[in-house]
Amino acid sequence: MAEGYSELANERISAVNGVDYAYRDTGGTGDGQSEGGAPLILLQHFRGNLDNWDPALIDALASTRRVVTFDNAGVGGSTGTTPDTIEQMARDAIAFIAAMQFSQVDLLGFSIGSFVAQQIALTRPAIVRRLVLASSAPQGAAGMHGWAPEVIGAIGTPHTSPEAYLGVFFAGSAASRQAGTEALRRTYARTEDRDTATSWATREAQYDAVCTWGIPDHALLQRLSCLQMPVFVANGDSDPMILPHYSYLLAGLIPYARVKMYPDAAHGFLFQHHAEFAADVEAFLADAS
Amino acid sequence: MAEGYSELANERISAVNGVDYAYRDTGGTGDGQSEGGAPLILLQHFRGNLDNWDPALIDALASTRRVVTFDNAGVGGSTGTTPDTIEQMARDAIAFIAAMQFSQVDLLGFSIGSFVAQQIALTRPAIVRRLVLASSAPQGAAGMHGWAPEVIGAIGTPHTSPEAYLGVFFAGSAASRQAGTEALRRTYARTEDRDTATSWATREAQYDAVCTWGIPDHALLQRLSCLQMPVFVANGDSDPMILPHYSYLLAGLIPYARVKMYPDAAHGFLFQHHAEFAADVEAFLADAS
Repeated sequence: MAEGYSELANERISAVNGVDYAYRDTGGTGDGQSEGGAPLILLQHFRGNLDNWDPALIDALASTRRVVTFDNAGVGGSTGTTPDTIEQMARDAIAFIAAMQFSQVDLLGFSIGSFVAQQIALTRPAIVRRLVLASSAPQGAAGMHGWAPEVIGAIGTPHTSPEAYLGVFFAGSAASRQAGTEALRRTYARTEDRDTATSWATREAQYDAVCTWGIPDHALLQRLSCLQMPVFVANGDSDPMILPHYSYLLAGLIPYARVKMYPDAAHGFLFQHHAEFAADVEAFLADAS
Repeated sequence: MAEGYSELANERISAVNGVDYAYRDTGGTGDGQSEGGAPLILLQHFRGNLDNWDPALIDALASTRRVVTFDNAGVGGSTGTTPDTIEQMARDAIAFIAAMQFSQVDLLGFSIGSFVAQQIALTRPAIVRRLVLASSAPQGAAGMHGWAPEVIGAIGTPHTSPEAYLGVFFAGSAASRQAGTEALRRTYARTEDRDTATSWATREAQYDAVCTWGIPDHALLQRLSCLQMPVFVANGDSDPMILPHYSYLLAGLIPYARVKMYPDAAHGFLFQHHAEFAADVEAFLADAS
C-alpha cells in the first residue's frame, strides 16, 4: 500500500440520484465485479464523516483488501440532504455503490451505519456478499427508542468535545481511556484536505432516523430472519450507546451470524481493538464456509 | 460434604398433586426459606433420570451450595404420568418445590429442563431467585420444531446406546469424545440404588412436548421480556440438538441475561466442562449485582 488512510485523497462521484458523494478509496484488490472481488464498503456512525474513521483501523483492513469510505447523502462533503429515515439512507447508499459500478460488496456498518447496512441487505440482498454489524441492534427491539439521556447529552450537542466522545466511545478503565486518546490523536493527525464537518441538519435528521428506527415493535424483529448472507456481529462489552445485549439479540435473529464481544471496550471498540477487530473481519470475510 | 452424588440416597416426597417425587439432596446451606438460602434445583434433560446427572458436575456445584435433583411427574422413580406439555411439567415442578417447603430457589434447567425452567419463571416468578438455562432456546423460535432427524434418530429410539449418546452430547474431536467417555463412566459408576429407568411413555410425552413447544410463533419470543431475575445462558459451541444460535437469541430476549459458549463441546457441555461450568454457575449465583 503506497499511502495510509490519513494521506488518501478526497474523491467525488456523481450518482443518478443527483448526489455528488465524497469518498476515499484505498485501492487494492476488489473491483466489485469479478468473483471474490468484493470491496469492503464502510458505513459511518452518527454525525461522522470521512475523518471519523480511525486510520489505524482502515489501514489494517486495507492491508488485505480494498476499502472504500464515503459520506452518505447530505453528510460531510457530499451534496444533497440528510434523510430522516434509515430506509432512505439505504437507498442513498445503494445509489453510491451503483455509481462506483460495484455489483457486489462487503458491508461494514458502524452504529447508525449498521442500521443502514441491515436495510441495504434487506432491500437489495443481491449486492451484499457479507455483512459486518458493529455496535448494532435489530429494528423494533424494546428499549432502543433513542439513546440514554447521558449519551445523547454527550454526543448530541451543537458543539461536541473530545471528552464527551471518549465517554461514549471508550470504557472507563485507564486502558480504554488511553486507547481512546490515541485513537483521537490518529483521527486528528491529518491536517490537509480534511472532510467537511457534518452539519446540525445532519445531526437532527440522523437522530430522527435513530428514534424512528427505535420505536418498539416486536414483530419487526422477524425481518432479519430472511437474511441469507453470513453476518458478523461485534460490539464492546461496555457500550452505553447500543447495549451489548442487542448484539446477542441481533445474532440470534439472523440465520447465519457469528458474534464477538470485545473486552473492556465501549461504542468505539473497533478503534480501540483495531488490530484484533481487523483480523477478525478479515477472517470472517475470507472464510469459505 | 460427607458423600458424593454417586452415594446419595434416593429420597421420596409426596406433593399435593398426588405425585410421589423421587429426589436426591446434597444438603449443605440453602433451606429455601431464609435470605440467601436458595437451594439449587436441577431440571433434567429428555429421557433423563436422577442417574443421568454427571456426579462430577453435581459434586462441583454442591461444594458451595445445596443441590437438589428430582424426577418430575411420571419420570423415572416418580409416580404419576409424564405430561405432554411444558406448561404442565412446570406445574408439576412447582408442586415438588412446594412439597420441599422451598419458598425461593435457584433453577438450573438443562435442555427440555430449561424449557420447564423458563415456564416456571414465567408462571411463578416469585419463587425463582436466579435462573441458569443450559442448552436452551426460547419458545416460538423458527427452526425449533423437534430436533434434527439425526439427533432424534440417535437418542429417540426405544433402546439407546452409549455411542448414540456421545454423538449428541459431545463434539467430534478426540478431546470431547474422551470427555464423553469419562462422563459416561462416572454416570454408570453407581451400581446400587440406581433410579428407575425412564419409560417409553415418558419419551413419547416429552417429545410431544418438545415439538409442541417448538411450533414457530415469532410473537411468543416476546414472553421472555417480562423476566426480571438474572439469567445465565450457556451452551456448547457445537450442540447439534439445540443450536448455539438459540442461546444468543435467548440471551438477547431476556432483559438481564449473560451468555457463555463453551468451546469444542456439544449438548453435554456442562458435563464435559463440569469444573469450569460449575465455577461459572457459582460466580453467577453468588454475584450481588
